[in-house]
Amino acid sequence: MLSGNSIGQKLTLTSFGESHGRCIGTVLDGCPAGLELDEKDIQGMLDYRRPGQSNITTQRKESDTVEILSGTFRGYTTGAPIAMIIWNHDRRSGDYDILRTLLRPGHSDYPAMIKYNKYNDIRGGGRFSGRLTATHVMGGAVAKKLLKTALGVTTNSYTACIGKICMDKAPRSMSSIYDNDVRCPDPGTAAKMRDAIMRARKKGDSLGGIIQSVTKNVPVGLGEPIFNSLESDLSRAMFSIPSVKGVEFGSGFAGSASYGSQNNDTYVKRRGKIVTRTNNAGGILGGLATGMPIVMRIAFKPVSSITQPQKTVDADSGRSAVIKVGGRHDPCVVPRAPPVVDSLASLVLADHALVGGFIGTVL
Amino acid sequence: MLSGNSIGQKLTLTSFGESHGRCIGTVLDGCPAGLELDEKDIQGMLDYRRPGQSNITTQRKESDTVEILSGTFRGYTTGAPIAMIIWNHDRRSGDYDILRTLLRPGHSDYPAMIKYNKYNDIRGGGRFSGRLTATHVMGGAVAKKLLKTALGVTTNSYTACIGKICMDKAPRSMSSIYDNDVRCPDPGTAAKMRDAIMRARKKGDSLGGIIQSVTKNVPVGLGEPIFNSLESDLSRAMFSIPSVKGVEFGSGFAGSASYGSQNNDTYVKRRGKIVTRTNNAGGILGGLATGMPIVMRIAFKPVSSITQPQKTVDADSGRSAVIKVGGRHDPCVVPRAPPVVDSLASLVLADHALVGGFIGTVL
Amino acid sequence: MLSGNSIGQKLTLTSFGESHGRCIGTVLDGCPAGLELDEKDIQGMLDYRRPGQSNITTQRKESDTVEILSGTFRGYTTGAPIAMIIWNHDRRSGDYDILRTLLRPGHSDYPAMIKYNKYNDIRGGGRFSGRLTATHVMGGAVAKKLLKTALGVTTNSYTACIGKICMDKAPRSMSSIYDNDVRCPDPGTAAKMRDAIMRARKKGDSLGGIIQSVTKNVPVGLGEPIFNSLESDLSRAMFSIPSVKGVEFGSGFAGSASYGSQNNDTYVKRRGKIVTRTNNAGGILGGLATGMPIVMRIAFKPVSSITQPQKTVDADSGRSAVIKVGGRHDPCVVPRAPPVVDSLASLVLADHALVGGFIGTVL
Amino acid sequence: MLSGNSIGQKLTLTSFGESHGRCIGTVLDGCPAGLELDEKDIQGMLDYRRPGQSNITTQRKESDTVEILSGTFRGYTTGAPIAMIIWNHDRRSGDYDILRTLLRPGHSDYPAMIKYNKYNDIRGGGRFSGRLTATHVMGGAVAKKLLKTALGVTTNSYTACIGKICMDKAPRSMSSIYDNDVRCPDPGTAAKMRDAIMRARKKGDSLGGIIQSVTKNVPVGLGEPIFNSLESDLSRAMFSIPSVKGVEFGSGFAGSASYGSQNNDTYVKRRGKIVTRTNNAGGILGGLATGMPIVMRIAFKPVSSITQPQKTVDADSGRSAVIKVGGRHDPCVVPRAPPVVDSLASLVLADHALVGGFIGTVL
Repeated sequence: MLSGNSIGQKLTLTSFGESHGRCIGTVLDGCPAGLELDEKDIQGMLDYRRPGQSNITTQRKESDTVEILSGTFRGYTTGAPIAMIIWNHDRRSGDYDILRTLLRPGHSDYPAMIKYNKYNDIRGGGRFSGRLTATHVMGGAVAKKLLKTALGVTTNSYTACIGKICMDKAPRSMSSIYDNDVRCPDPGTAAKMRDAIMRARKKGDSLGGIIQSVTKNVPVGLGEPIFNSLESDLSRAMFSIPSVKGVEFGSGFAGSASYGSQNNDTYVKRRGKIVTRTNNAGGILGGLATGMPIVMRIAFKPVSSITQPQKTVDADSGRSAVIKVGGRHDPCVVPRAPPVVDSLASLVLADHALVGGFIGTVL
Repeated sequence: MLSGNSIGQKLTLTSFGESHGRCIGTVLDGCPAGLELDEKDIQGMLDYRRPGQSNITTQRKESDTVEILSGTFRGYTTGAPIAMIIWNHDRRSGDYDILRTLLRPGHSDYPAMIKYNKYNDIRGGGRFSGRLTATHVMGGAVAKKLLKTALGVTTNSYTACIGKICMDKAPRSMSSIYDNDVRCPDPGTAAKMRDAIMRARKKGDSLGGIIQSVTKNVPVGLGEPIFNSLESDLSRAMFSIPSVKGVEFGSGFAGSASYGSQNNDTYVKRRGKIVTRTNNAGGILGGLATGMPIVMRIAFKPVSSITQPQKTVDADSGRSAVIKVGGRHDPCVVPRAPPVVDSLASLVLADHALVGGFIGTVL
Repeated sequence: MLSGNSIGQKLTLTSFGESHGRCIGTVLDGCPAGLELDEKDIQGMLDYRRPGQSNITTQRKESDTVEILSGTFRGYTTGAPIAMIIWNHDRRSGDYDILRTLLRPGHSDYPAMIKYNKYNDIRGGGRFSGRLTATHVMGGAVAKKLLKTALGVTTNSYTACIGKICMDKAPRSMSSIYDNDVRCPDPGTAAKMRDAIMRARKKGDSLGGIIQSVTKNVPVGLGEPIFNSLESDLSRAMFSIPSVKGVEFGSGFAGSASYGSQNNDTYVKRRGKIVTRTNNAGGILGGLATGMPIVMRIAFKPVSSITQPQKTVDADSGRSAVIKVGGRHDPCVVPRAPPVVDSLASLVLADHALVGGFIGTVL
Repeated sequence: MLSGNSIGQKLTLTSFGESHGRCIGTVLDGCPAGLELDEKDIQGMLDYRRPGQSNITTQRKESDTVEILSGTFRGYTTGAPIAMIIWNHDRRSGDYDILRTLLRPGHSDYPAMIKYNKYNDIRGGGRFSGRLTATHVMGGAVAKKLLKTALGVTTNSYTACIGKICMDKAPRSMSSIYDNDVRCPDPGTAAKMRDAIMRARKKGDSLGGIIQSVTKNVPVGLGEPIFNSLESDLSRAMFSIPSVKGVEFGSGFAGSASYGSQNNDTYVKRRGKIVTRTNNAGGILGGLATGMPIVMRIAFKPVSSITQPQKTVDADSGRSAVIKVGGRHDPCVVPRAPPVVDSLASLVLADHALVGGFIGTVL
């Protein structure tokens, strides 16, 4: 649990594999027995994050077909670890040999070279590649189904901003998120976002953006205080996604500039339930779920791999150099991130549901 | 490790105590043997966070005098758990009885009532009180000294914004942070911040703000990939502080609106070391330290406890009600937060230094 | 969790303090809210393990009075960490200074000196002293009450052998364990054991023995497979007691010399419940509780501290030497071990009950 | 870490798969970068535990060919998780359908049925099968090579007893362990053991026995006190092996019947090193390695699956019944256990070596 490849206390995901290795995979341990599960439950979410689907993503071709290797029997989970695997097909290693010494700005090359000496697998970023988020989706799809089945919890994440282009109001419906390839539920904004990405690609540049994630029906009181607050555990998971550089809940950074009298959410009783009029808390107080939607915003930096020439240093010779980053890269990863955010949010919340006794060890 | 009261894998802090209980305390386990340590090393940081120091903080009177109960021998740490304690003196419980049913907006009262049934210690917020951050400072002061002694690492955190008032440039020097009671290293901005807090207090209102934290001399390669990225572990720690609603590293949310060609930090060689010209990465790439300063910004919501009357619900009767929150509260907690942020950052980085072998088990 | 001072995943005990430091203490985290608890619930078990009670134990005088510092409110646990402390009174440090270099046979002096360099607290064994088992009893008494209250589980441990003197049949009743100072429920055997200890003491020698522990009413299916089998977690706990060198369950070592047809326990139905005729499995199959009593035997080596002169080495000079171990020591620790075994068994089983959902987060 | 399928803090093994599922596998996380590794390093130990090698083992035919799926690059470990897999070939599920209700004496059927309801994978014992110990060997072979390469540590385990037949003195050499199919380094005793197993098989019965394990060159001071004592962590690992019912170190149970003056090991200096004349401590004092060989004895109960008819209960109807256990079973598992014991001992000691800083994160 100390090497950065596992998350979760009772529902524990362990990720393995490399971008251009034989496969990538996940072991999800701690899922209760009795959840109906087969590959179809997972493949849908994987397809949403799959590369090569449109001209705004990387052109690497991978079917990302999941296989469940263990943990189910006669169509149901057994309580044993669920191992899942995706075999890599479109592997190209040659592109990366130059990276041994020529440091790509914005990439992990330099600190990873120091940490692992010459042994780091640098093919396509190895363990540091965004491709590894598919291992989170494999486990996250199970967690999402578990939360839905056991508690009726739903998570929806969507593209709120690409570069400076942002949705200017809350989405009417979550059902249209996947209607377009930027994953923005507002069609007009989506078209502008798409154009911005295409323009950046043409210039050999890249864009970042913001994902907004909304989780409904979380039981009141789910979570733990202090170091396992929902914000603590959700942010930990979100910052595991490559390129994420900021996370906020509810009114977040903007709220920090307001007054208490404005930011406090007033309690009211509606249809027999205690709710709040506003939701500046983003559904979390004292680390615990208030029952209001958990609202989280996640900032992604622009992709580091750009085809423009960039100044850098050759780590061996110590001399200045110019690098043109090859390989096949997304000009913007944000459109592929919603299923990843959904997955990690689901893993964290399902883990808390199990630890807190909201879900038992057999469904 | 599942109940939210512990943090750290090899350097593990376990917090105990309640705001109006007999004491608050910490057990810090995993500190290497051979660190020179006595109460003075800890008291200084506690004093910076202590209540009742000026009229912009709560008027609760606590000396917050730390006692080391174990883990040192003849002035040095032994490698055994270091238990530390602060006895509570100014305890008032009567103020809080009404909270059993009348829900304070913005507080954990409601979800905690559901989670713990009637057993939650509601005196002064119990475990959910900001007072508990003193337990983090006790452990954090040890971690800070350990990092400084073993690796020369220094952390400085300061008030960058109070409400809408922000420092408009980087501070010239960190040495003046504690020269004023808002902990802002720019004296002119500090004066405006102070006025804003006093105005809010007079109106029975409260303010939030932003802390900026800068850590220097972190060894290149410190950290782990993916789920134990430095961003993951630092954000987890920061979100454990009551009122924190946002965390960003380097260019953070602003960076997500820029282009890759702008946001990438160019490598150069300076005085024999590989560094970057800019530091939009905030000192972290791929979850690992780049050797540049780790720069983190933490957003605090305005304090929930305001003396203005607020609408709410009586949880017992279900009826609407008006609440006037009594007790003694800070109109703004941000000025007391820098030592807490320093402490948690130090705990996380010292833990990583131990896990990664940058510090051994004996100094 | 890596430094050996914590045990338990959901019910986590962290031990602190030293034999001749200011105090010894425990933080028990993860206890459900709603358990009625005060010092009396703990003091009884502590009294059973207290030193100085008779002439077969050490003459160190300690009242071992427990104080609960946190985690209870109005007489009930709150779900917050329960910190408990015993102040040390009869501290003598001078006795031990010679140990810096003269290695006591059978003690941890030598490996501890290497591990911690010169920083190890050697006063009375420091962290390695049997005195620290009182911290397990503080937490264990809470766990025992929790198991009894929530599930009706009872644990009884007693002295089965002292040296070569063993009970030759199962005890008729557990109620007489504490009727004599060797804690053997058979009065005739107890008298012989007592004599044997007194004879060893007179010769400046020491004895070991075997504790048998029986836990009833454990719910069927409690436990986890493989690495958290009940045997795994119980043995881990038992081997944390100084001097323990063997642990077996059910027919144990003797059973390994029998045939499958003899050792298998036949299932029968009695009063509507499935039980087994014999209990060679010691109540555990596949790591899970069968519902039959959990039966465990724990071997204690004879106490290492003997007053006879012993040959050894001076670690500084490397020369041969003769050591006469001073201090106040038990000639046999087995009679003081039953409450320790009870405590650790209760901690492990309560932890499993919480992890497995047999006990919820609020009683 | 709560579901029983993982072991180790810094070197963490997670096991997955079922006896008659598609595969069995392991993820070993935390192995340092720079260890030369390919399948051959693992296959040798797997071959020693492989079924179907002689007529004293089960006749199930499995080649148990390991494939490394991740974590190596150009022949060396990278520091990333090492996933390894064995595809199951000789799967027969039909044999086990009757087990849904007819409880096999000595098996986990009954508690597992209660714990997992009807969802447990009962084919060949599912997760509870001894076949899963092959997942420990995959990881253990890596740990063993790591210990050998980095520290010169060697572990050898051998059959000391089968039923009542025991070696009567220490083995002259460990090199002959695998010369015979019972894995006993004394050829004369081995022949008698073999006969005993064949006689038991003919009677439809089974035998147990004792494995002795000896680990040399462990650095002095390796280990942690109290709850992570070497005895605690080694015993936890050993009791994860199906059928293990007892573990002792050094003089163990026999030592508990001796006097302190007999059992204490006298220190002497030999060739510049401090050693002890005897090794009743089994190489561990205070939970820490003394530098003397770590000596451990592990008791295996006789195999539960015997072909003789046995009385039992039908869990559905509650009626008495007679069961004849089918399937292909070992009449004695002890001869296949030495590589499993070696593996688990190596995993525990390598984990401690990493936690204690005896091995770094890059070789």
